[in-house]
Amino acid sequence: MKVIIMKELLEANDRLAEENRSYFKENHVLCVNLMGSPGAGKTTLISAIADELQDIQIGVVEGDIASSIDADKLEQKGVHSSQINTCGECHLDANVIRQGAEEIAMKNGIVFVENVGNLICPAEFDLGETVRLLAASVPEGDDKPYKYVPMFSYADVVALTKCDLKEAVGFDTTYFTKGLRAISEAPIYEISLKKGQQREGIKELAAFLRKKYEEV
Amino acid sequence: MKVIIMKELLEANDRLAEENRSYFKENHVLCVNLMGSPGAGKTTLISAIADELQDIQIGVVEGDIASSIDADKLEQKGVHSSQINTCGECHLDANVIRQGAEEIAMKNGIVFVENVGNLICPAEFDLGETVRLLAASVPEGDDKPYKYVPMFSYADVVALTKCDLKEAVGFDTTYFTKGLRAISEAPIYEISLKKGQQREGIKELAAFLRKKYEEV
Repeated sequence: MKVIIMKELLEANDRLAEENRSYFKENHVLCVNLMGSPGAGKTTLISAIADELQDIQIGVVEGDIASSIDADKLEQKGVHSSQINTCGECHLDANVIRQGAEEIAMKNGIVFVENVGNLICPAEFDLGETVRLLAASVPEGDDKPYKYVPMFSYADVVALTKCDLKEAVGFDTTYFTKGLRAISEAPIYEISLKKGQQREGIKELAAFLRKKYEEV
Repeated sequence: MKVIIMKELLEANDRLAEENRSYFKENHVLCVNLMGSPGAGKTTLISAIADELQDIQIGVVEGDIASSIDADKLEQKGVHSSQINTCGECHLDANVIRQGAEEIAMKNGIVFVENVGNLICPAEFDLGETVRLLAASVPEGDDKPYKYVPMFSYADVVALTKCDLKEAVGFDTTYFTKGLRAISEAPIYEISLKKGQQREGIKELAAFLRKKYEEV
């Protein structure tokens, strides 16, 4: 019985996701679904990409189970944000994304959906996005593509964040990449955004997204 | 409709959890439900606690959505393990725990249930455990108790792991503690298990668990 209900929920979600996809296309918006574990550095990543793409309008739909800490941070930077509190729900779905997107009412730009910090559940819910960006942080460990297969398979592009911690935590990039390549062709961008140090990898990731935006 | 089904599922789970609780008590077993984000250091924590409690029999029920990487690591150390692959499910429930516990068939000892790496969903599922141990790692960030309220409220004890990275990531312990104290009285153990460095905090956490075991 549980399976049937879940299937109905997912089918309803997929219909709404297709409507969102049309909505974003009509408004010439690239929607990026940004997923990752708690503390993978998702908000910091959006903030840094916004710095790199100052000629493109950036909006954010923030998903959290509680608080508006992330949306507040981005608003302070001048990024137009909408906060969704899921009240305990472990993922965003197509329905709430449409509400968030209509609230920020963007045309001609990139909307990031910062999903709830969770390396499992969001991979089941198409939001109507064009790009699925996964933030995987170095301190989470190099074995994650082997253990969280659905999410790593689902991503179109992987941002390997906090690369400045590689040595401190003994991260094996070859092992990580091998695990990802067994299930996915998604490009990997190695990112370091440590305060007071030179930013690494963010220009390349921003250029990837700019190209996707130009194709909308 | 979704709510009703979910309620039924949770009620069925709670009944099974109570049966598990009796089962563990009859066998003089302390069951510890260990939860935390992907990469919070859960397996490393179990391994280090086993080192400290060599006079107590330790068993582990490992939950992962794929792979047996963690159970293999612990078996190599001589910790009796049972691996549950949830095939995509985002949490363990009381039913699968009973199966895992019967497989390792422990009497007089501590059984750790290493839950699926997820800071949200496992907090909804009582497994019949006596102690809810949350591993929260320093690189996840000091704002997590504010954002993942249900999980931090649910924990009986918090292991703040990877404390050797505090300076590298700019972790504010006071801010973290304030967030936790707003919702919970759970003690916090600050742990560092970095290879080649002195272990910190693990003796104290092991002593806490030893006391709980003696009370079973």
